[in-house]
Amino acid sequence: MGKKIQEKKREKETIGITAPKKEFQDWYPELVQKAGLADYAPVGGCMVIKPYGYSIWEKIQQTLDRNLKDSGHVNAYFPLFIPEKFLKKEAEHFSGFKPEVAWIEDENEKYALRPTSETIIYDSYSKWIRSWRDLPLLINQWCNIIRWETKVTRLFLRTREFLWQEGHTAHASCEEADKEVMLILKTYTDLIENCLAIPILTGKKSEAEKFAGALYTATMEALMPDGKALQMGTSHNLGQNFSKAFDIKFLDRDEKEKYVWQTSWAVTTRLIGALTMVHGDDKGLILPPKIAPIQIVIIPIPFKDSIKRVLKEARALEKSLSDKFSVKLDDRESYTPGWKYNEWEMKGIPLRIEIGPKDVKKKQVVLVRRDTGNKLPVKTKDLPKKAGKILDEIQKNLFRKAKKFLQDNTKPAGNFQQLKTLIKSKKMAKAGWCGSPACEAVVKDETGATIRLLPFKKEKGPAKCVKCGKPSKDTVYFAKAY
Amino acid sequence: MGKKIQEKKREKETIGITAPKKEFQDWYPELVQKAGLADYAPVGGCMVIKPYGYSIWEKIQQTLDRNLKDSGHVNAYFPLFIPEKFLKKEAEHFSGFKPEVAWIEDENEKYALRPTSETIIYDSYSKWIRSWRDLPLLINQWCNIIRWETKVTRLFLRTREFLWQEGHTAHASCEEADKEVMLILKTYTDLIENCLAIPILTGKKSEAEKFAGALYTATMEALMPDGKALQMGTSHNLGQNFSKAFDIKFLDRDEKEKYVWQTSWAVTTRLIGALTMVHGDDKGLILPPKIAPIQIVIIPIPFKDSIKRVLKEARALEKSLSDKFSVKLDDRESYTPGWKYNEWEMKGIPLRIEIGPKDVKKKQVVLVRRDTGNKLPVKTKDLPKKAGKILDEIQKNLFRKAKKFLQDNTKPAGNFQQLKTLIKSKKMAKAGWCGSPACEAVVKDETGATIRLLPFKKEKGPAKCVKCGKPSKDTVYFAKAY
Repeated sequence: MGKKIQEKKREKETIGITAPKKEFQDWYPELVQKAGLADYAPVGGCMVIKPYGYSIWEKIQQTLDRNLKDSGHVNAYFPLFIPEKFLKKEAEHFSGFKPEVAWIEDENEKYALRPTSETIIYDSYSKWIRSWRDLPLLINQWCNIIRWETKVTRLFLRTREFLWQEGHTAHASCEEADKEVMLILKTYTDLIENCLAIPILTGKKSEAEKFAGALYTATMEALMPDGKALQMGTSHNLGQNFSKAFDIKFLDRDEKEKYVWQTSWAVTTRLIGALTMVHGDDKGLILPPKIAPIQIVIIPIPFKDSIKRVLKEARALEKSLSDKFSVKLDDRESYTPGWKYNEWEMKGIPLRIEIGPKDVKKKQVVLVRRDTGNKLPVKTKDLPKKAGKILDEIQKNLFRKAKKFLQDNTKPAGNFQQLKTLIKSKKMAKAGWCGSPACEAVVKDETGATIRLLPFKKEKGPAKCVKCGKPSKDTVYFAKAY
Repeated sequence: MGKKIQEKKREKETIGITAPKKEFQDWYPELVQKAGLADYAPVGGCMVIKPYGYSIWEKIQQTLDRNLKDSGHVNAYFPLFIPEKFLKKEAEHFSGFKPEVAWIEDENEKYALRPTSETIIYDSYSKWIRSWRDLPLLINQWCNIIRWETKVTRLFLRTREFLWQEGHTAHASCEEADKEVMLILKTYTDLIENCLAIPILTGKKSEAEKFAGALYTATMEALMPDGKALQMGTSHNLGQNFSKAFDIKFLDRDEKEKYVWQTSWAVTTRLIGALTMVHGDDKGLILPPKIAPIQIVIIPIPFKDSIKRVLKEARALEKSLSDKFSVKLDDRESYTPGWKYNEWEMKGIPLRIEIGPKDVKKKQVVLVRRDTGNKLPVKTKDLPKKAGKILDEIQKNLFRKAKKFLQDNTKPAGNFQQLKTLIKSKKMAKAGWCGSPACEAVVKDETGATIRLLPFKKEKGPAKCVKCGKPSKDTVYFAKAY
């Protein structure tokens, strides 16, 4: 009995986050847990994705899956277990992933728990692909991924197991593979900027930072409130590196045998972490309406003799809104309206509708925006239209705010000292780079920052390499990263 | 080059199944592979679920997920890794699963790759559940499952890894848990009988056959063409076995602490195997319309000077049907209509529409049913209505046929000799049972058949136990099983 009383006490204490957002390192894990997104698992380095967090993942899945299918991609499922000999076939790939692979053995063989599935999937491709008629082959897989991280666990960002989708395509030419890489980047950008309201920079990775085994890696980078970049997703042109290692050939129209050109690409549950960090505030999560599992919450404010009337009106509202929006009526009797406000603010519901006896009389409701806290009385008859308009505004406002943050915190660095100062003061630095891996390595050693990307279109910037002072080949973005 | 020519040859040979359905042991794996459902993986005991097979799984997921959400269930995700100490907490559970667990170790601990997730999930429940307000807790998870089978691999039926959903609920009373068990059984039955068109028997498992750690197990059993029963899904009342082992208590309205009552339940990708076995024929798969990823395939039959006209009409048909049905127009130029007929028959598309120049002139099309092969000319203007009607008929016909097979192959056994003969001749036997585990064990040893279920409602049947001749307590169903 003692335990339960203690827990009841703890329950009271734990409503609301104790750390403000400016105490970012404490704020983030507390918010993730208290908003019901995820929890530390009783397994070192793992997380439990709780129902509310998972419902956001389902929204991400639905949006992305529909778009991938519209562009001709299909889903399949390949084994969790990858024979060691497969993983070793592409040497660069193997050495890139080896440090974080979890292994399992039976009497015959040693298997990796997939840290990524190129090798196991391409073994099948070598059997399935015969002629140009089989191309392009556009397959996607939703699954769990294992990377036996030894660094500290960060919910959604660094865990030994996470969920993702991984696309694996095969094409007849490098140009087609290039197009696929960019099509996917566009699909991802649409998801991240238009639905998650997170502005990103896109470009190529340097040789040092590209995917192990790729020809090149296209990346999307977002800037978190602590000045660290978060890689939001990547799309790789694998060239013929894997098709040569796995003997994936096709008979072309010209009757010649050729190796296919391949791409692979992924986004993961870390997107939920990004969403939390970018938009959240001292009160909790703020979800962009397009990705919110619940867009509108209705809170009745009943007084003694008006309970029935208020509830009846609230139910009518719920019904009238649920055609167009995802609505929840919180009619629990054992909680006060104030308690409910706090809870749904914590969960980041974009729009709250309050309705009390006076509102019923005036044929109105009060709308409260989660992003600004602004209250607005609205006539009930105008509600569906008005709610739609405000949700649009919230979506735009969240993106605008995040975009401003990205712009305000990205500064040019003309020399190494400026770069050091910028990184130390939690900025992203735009700087010249001569293209030498040596300069890149020194910057990383001395500042902890890496080249996050080389923009696709050459950008104007400092004319000299930020490290060696030689003429710059590219203007690149440096930041510390998750 | 030699390899490719060989493969081209092989490709020609492999159109069509070489084994008829009566050669069941050869027919099944050949069909699964040739219809594009699944393939043997290059990992011992594993399978690759190919895009067409996965699209059937997606249909199953959509149907079931919607129904589970409608009845208040939510999805979440728990780790693949289960600490050995958790698995050991419920002794009966541990000993039931131990033989097929795959283990992985790091410096600190030994982990099972989830063979089922009761223990890892209930550790979280012990933290999440505090009061009656938290109940019922209704969580479902879609994930991969690992059972390190040592027996021979059978695609979809027995593989080291498969996909499933597992529901895990907690309730305030045994009655509520009982209700949940039956609600899920009803939800599953709806999926399996109404969508997959597979008739099932439902009832309880005997003590020897129930889920390791359960109070009782409700099961659904279907009869395959080779006379073996296939367990299609189970729903368990776990009683308080796990809540006591994992200390999952709640403070009830009466201010007393109580252990929760729990259920767990699952269906897996083996449903795709059942679908294949029950409905397939010598030409390939036959999919019930309600679960077919493609319900109607349109095959244009172009002649030299009418290609454009026929194609135009075929496209108009596709458009007019795709509001109501899932339609595919096969307008590939590099294959003949005859080749296409074979391919789509192999894939089990319920309804084919043929349209040639004569049909265009007559403003008609020819419908061909996959289940009966019947051809029917239909006026184009009547098509949407007629197609809907025929798809309904196909759905019903497949169920009726399968139901007749189940009835024709289930026979009463009055004594042990009759039981032996029935099992040997690939029947399911309905027999009396005294309730003694000893009789059950002898039947299993001597015939290979197990008690598949005890019907929920006592059924009339032989008055004496099929083994010992003592008065029967229950009429039960015996069969060999997958």
